[in-house]
Amino acid sequence: MAKVKVALAQMPVVEDKEANLRTAAEYVKRAADQGAKLISLPEMFCCLYETASFIKAAEPKGERVWEALRRMAEDNKVYLVGGSMPEKEKNKLYNTCFIFGPDGNQIGRHRKVHLFDIDVKGGQYFKESDTFSAGDDITLIYTPYAKVGIVLCFDIRFIEQARILALQGAELLFAPGAFNMSTGPAHWELLYRSRALDNQVFMLGCAPARDENGPYVSYGNSLIVDPWGTVIARLDGEPGLILEEIDTDMISSVRDQLPLMDARRTDLYGVMMV
Amino acid sequence: MAKVKVALAQMPVVEDKEANLRTAAEYVKRAADQGAKLISLPEMFCCLYETASFIKAAEPKGERVWEALRRMAEDNKVYLVGGSMPEKEKNKLYNTCFIFGPDGNQIGRHRKVHLFDIDVKGGQYFKESDTFSAGDDITLIYTPYAKVGIVLCFDIRFIEQARILALQGAELLFAPGAFNMSTGPAHWELLYRSRALDNQVFMLGCAPARDENGPYVSYGNSLIVDPWGTVIARLDGEPGLILEEIDTDMISSVRDQLPLMDARRTDLYGVMMV
Repeated sequence: MAKVKVALAQMPVVEDKEANLRTAAEYVKRAADQGAKLISLPEMFCCLYETASFIKAAEPKGERVWEALRRMAEDNKVYLVGGSMPEKEKNKLYNTCFIFGPDGNQIGRHRKVHLFDIDVKGGQYFKESDTFSAGDDITLIYTPYAKVGIVLCFDIRFIEQARILALQGAELLFAPGAFNMSTGPAHWELLYRSRALDNQVFMLGCAPARDENGPYVSYGNSLIVDPWGTVIARLDGEPGLILEEIDTDMISSVRDQLPLMDARRTDLYGVMMV
Repeated sequence: MAKVKVALAQMPVVEDKEANLRTAAEYVKRAADQGAKLISLPEMFCCLYETASFIKAAEPKGERVWEALRRMAEDNKVYLVGGSMPEKEKNKLYNTCFIFGPDGNQIGRHRKVHLFDIDVKGGQYFKESDTFSAGDDITLIYTPYAKVGIVLCFDIRFIEQARILALQGAELLFAPGAFNMSTGPAHWELLYRSRALDNQVFMLGCAPARDENGPYVSYGNSLIVDPWGTVIARLDGEPGLILEEIDTDMISSVRDQLPLMDARRTDLYGVMMV
């Protein structure tokens, strides 16, 4: 199917997990009621973006957060990219995106592959790797609407992952993220636009709404970029819902006009999975 | 050496080859007189950007254009990235950048690897591959100021080439280019910024000045982007000279703060030369 309505829920995230689950369910229902078939929540939609909250909110697959996501998908008969949550498995934590189908079955799981470690002079210090373990998988999901790649926030900075997904046939890349007020203005749009343009795919970035008083101030600016590199929908820092019909036929149209994917010199170089 | 003054000559290009060589020599002298040590000319600085002009202007290495470039480097004691010219070898033509050292010796040659074939609906049709053969080499040059990678115009659209150069140690990527009035506003800055940010290198794009009456209207907008993805110098469509001191130590500083190059998951993926 070529045309599909997609939605990005730039929801406010608070300390209270139950409140976040209620908010997420409201956004998903609102999007589904307006015809969205593929819906994304933001990275860490269920807890504040800080180490203590990650540890407190962490749960194994199958428990409270996972079950709530499963129900949102099933109740609304939608594909749901569940942003991310701190996932506990044995004695390890992962920053994990679970993906569910309209029947309520989990159809994918992406554990953030590149952990966010940054130390900007006069800016931000944060080491996600103090808390989390990294995932080891590149994640492609099949839906009747499109082949969907998943990358999580910092993952988007690494060209190889998006390229591999595009070469595997991904048409939409959902990249839930939570950039901050130093890297957000500097890099957020640039990264989504360049991944879209270079790979001639749609990029969809869903962020938590900005809370100037939170421990980590999310840049917000959830957006959709088309395969020509044009931003076709974008929020600011406020809570909101992007609801947009996209036409995946645009991918072949753009690739016909500007045949980048076919013009790669695969006789000279390659990107490959090890 | 960490600090070096670089220059980009956004010169007007006309039909008359000799006039173009004189203009180029003036720009190079003016830049050198102001302390520039690494100077770039635009793509196809010696002829109009159209098939008939390419064929008419084409010459083998060692003849008029090549010799003029060699002298500009030697006379001004600079490293010269010679934009590009239609190079004839046997019965083939290449879009070629010759690079010269301050002693007047050729120190590198980059033949455009990705030929520019485009067919935008309601926009531009052009098939460079009708005229040119593609080069087969990824080009890295050693200078006392910096390791320098060379890509030519359409090459910049392919993430693998810039990545390989960065992994080989390139600190500055000179990408002479001549985008047009449809792809220029849409993609020019985005491409230079993203290559700079993703690879944490300096990107330098030198274009011909815009001539609204020419057969191919160059976007111009020669620019330098630093390893944080910030545009630090940029022209519009008018003829002009960018002269900028850049500090290659910024590369290690940016990589310390945001260690992207080290955080690549080389256990999961790789970019390699075939």
